[in-house]
Amino acid sequence: MKISIMKSYLNESIQQVSKAISSRTTIPILSGIKFDVNHQGVTLTASDTDISIQSFIPLEDGDKSVVQVEQPGSVVLPAKFFVEIIKKLPSQEVHMEVKANFNTFISAGATEIQLVGLDPEEFPVLPSIEENQTVSIPGDLLKNMIKQTVFSISTHETTPILTGVLWSLGDNELKFVATDRHRLATRSAMLDNAEGVRFNNVVISGKTLNELSKIVPDQNTLVDIVVADNQVLFKIDRVLFYSRILDGTYPDTSRIIPTSYKTELVLDTKKLSESIDRAYLLSREEKTNIVRMQTMDSGSIEISSSSSELGKVREEIEPADFNGEPLKISFNSKYMLDVLKVVESEQLMIAFTGVMSPIILKPLDDSHSLYVILPYRTTN
Amino acid sequence: MKISIMKSYLNESIQQVSKAISSRTTIPILSGIKFDVNHQGVTLTASDTDISIQSFIPLEDGDKSVVQVEQPGSVVLPAKFFVEIIKKLPSQEVHMEVKANFNTFISAGATEIQLVGLDPEEFPVLPSIEENQTVSIPGDLLKNMIKQTVFSISTHETTPILTGVLWSLGDNELKFVATDRHRLATRSAMLDNAEGVRFNNVVISGKTLNELSKIVPDQNTLVDIVVADNQVLFKIDRVLFYSRILDGTYPDTSRIIPTSYKTELVLDTKKLSESIDRAYLLSREEKTNIVRMQTMDSGSIEISSSSSELGKVREEIEPADFNGEPLKISFNSKYMLDVLKVVESEQLMIAFTGVMSPIILKPLDDSHSLYVILPYRTTN
Repeated sequence: MKISIMKSYLNESIQQVSKAISSRTTIPILSGIKFDVNHQGVTLTASDTDISIQSFIPLEDGDKSVVQVEQPGSVVLPAKFFVEIIKKLPSQEVHMEVKANFNTFISAGATEIQLVGLDPEEFPVLPSIEENQTVSIPGDLLKNMIKQTVFSISTHETTPILTGVLWSLGDNELKFVATDRHRLATRSAMLDNAEGVRFNNVVISGKTLNELSKIVPDQNTLVDIVVADNQVLFKIDRVLFYSRILDGTYPDTSRIIPTSYKTELVLDTKKLSESIDRAYLLSREEKTNIVRMQTMDSGSIEISSSSSELGKVREEIEPADFNGEPLKISFNSKYMLDVLKVVESEQLMIAFTGVMSPIILKPLDDSHSLYVILPYRTTN
Repeated sequence: MKISIMKSYLNESIQQVSKAISSRTTIPILSGIKFDVNHQGVTLTASDTDISIQSFIPLEDGDKSVVQVEQPGSVVLPAKFFVEIIKKLPSQEVHMEVKANFNTFISAGATEIQLVGLDPEEFPVLPSIEENQTVSIPGDLLKNMIKQTVFSISTHETTPILTGVLWSLGDNELKFVATDRHRLATRSAMLDNAEGVRFNNVVISGKTLNELSKIVPDQNTLVDIVVADNQVLFKIDRVLFYSRILDGTYPDTSRIIPTSYKTELVLDTKKLSESIDRAYLLSREEKTNIVRMQTMDSGSIEISSSSSELGKVREEIEPADFNGEPLKISFNSKYMLDVLKVVESEQLMIAFTGVMSPIILKPLDDSHSLYVILPYRTTN
């Protein structure tokens, strides 16, 4: 293998694939990035066996020459050092040559680097995926759906299935569900051109989805999603992102979402968020994060919290709308803030069916999101 | 105590004094901020006994009304919660009233806070300092002198005196010295109007100097420095910053700085810095950070490092000047990078007296700085 390559393209591809590299791997070959060079271009691959990412660098981009291939070939190079040194090379062009025993010589300007490469034959083979279950989704919508659900996953390894987000698709509607048994987030969206494609119980690790979000560009790129038996493949421009589907059956969450309410409030999202944030500051000192919400005779909503050591915070906000019975409820303000941080609509409906029943939060826009928070059982 | 105060002024003063609060204090009163209100204004004080900071808020600033005093008085309020909640209050004006048992009522907009205050009589009294040893220094020069020396202090608590920076003043020259026994940094500057003021063995904790740097504004404010027996007082605008002087005698470092050299190089600071940084990346993998510097027959300087697992990096840079004997030396590249990060001059002199003797670095400007790094003993 012998090539000359533009540093900026090499750097971008390295950044993309290196997201699949775990710093804690004990398998030496998995701490490396695989290079495959042929007369079409250079393919970089990295994998931690849960996620595999592949990025392709073409010979030319528009009328710009990106790679000159003198000799095709393959090698695996140590990722951690490679990622950092490429960024810091002094010239725009980088020369790479693999010699005997995968010893790799890299030069750029006056800098010469000799790296101990590994045998590419030892690198794991990527899963082969049949492309009969494919849908497309705008990249920014996908990122939004991830952001608006992934915070509700469980971080406990004792229930591995809940560390993922449940994806399902039917009748052109893609739906995400995440829950840690104390709260739940759902978000759905209608897709174009998804006729005939259906899937269910596709659970993808939250950690994986966060990495995926970083790779999807902010511009409105289309992401192709291919679902197979135990793998999902995301195609983003010149990047292929493979993720394992988590083993197990996701619990049925439909029954914990109430469908009729005793009290309904409409509140300004920003005002509620700032108010809960102040009450949270004090509740945090008690480690419980408990904040109380209470309807007043005046029609206002009181938000309050207290700490035996520090004191009390209370304030009132005016609801834009208020229907149903008076109410007094306690909840984990951190869970409420997590929701308020990702809600984009200016107003929000909060609904209750009783002091010990789930609290429902629904943004007043067409985002098809719904959040559930279980209340605290308190004595007063 | 009963006042109305502009949130922005209160917030600024809280930010300043809270730098004196240790999160690990076990003495409850020291986790608080003391408020003293009289008919001149409001004084905030915080202390961890090593550092004490006092900030004064006047009744008026120019023609702007800042504080209205309805009733003078004092109270100590819990700092951690107070710092955060004030920032997040919904209005520009904050009302504070201390009632029985130091219970303090704060209101802003629709937010009402009740805080458990503490007795101000329990708060430590600030040291009284005689102002006969006073010098003035421009704030930006002071910050620069701190930045260019403090990184060389020791972080080992076994030699407490070396965790500080040595200050001395004589013949109008203020000099800072810091060393951890492996490297040394000195920086001096001529002061105006310091005639007759002399001090020696004034050692101030590096941690304290970093906090002081954060409080000194970037604009060219004059900082007054008052040195007493075991305390230094810095006066910065409306802020008083008291620091304890470290106990003990700072070691004599003058003898470890060579005065004649066998080899002298002049190098471009930025090029050297980037080159050492690349070699450091590889040396770091070996945990030693060892980088080699070697003169070549061609007149170039070779910078190189190697790692048994990863490989080698080597490159050459052209010196702007080269006098004396050929040389081959190994050193801790992290120490060299620390110096190169704070050097502001475009060129730098590096001088050597032998493979096992200290390396001298001198910026080629009028900053009166000098850095010493001890080399590594290596076998080749």
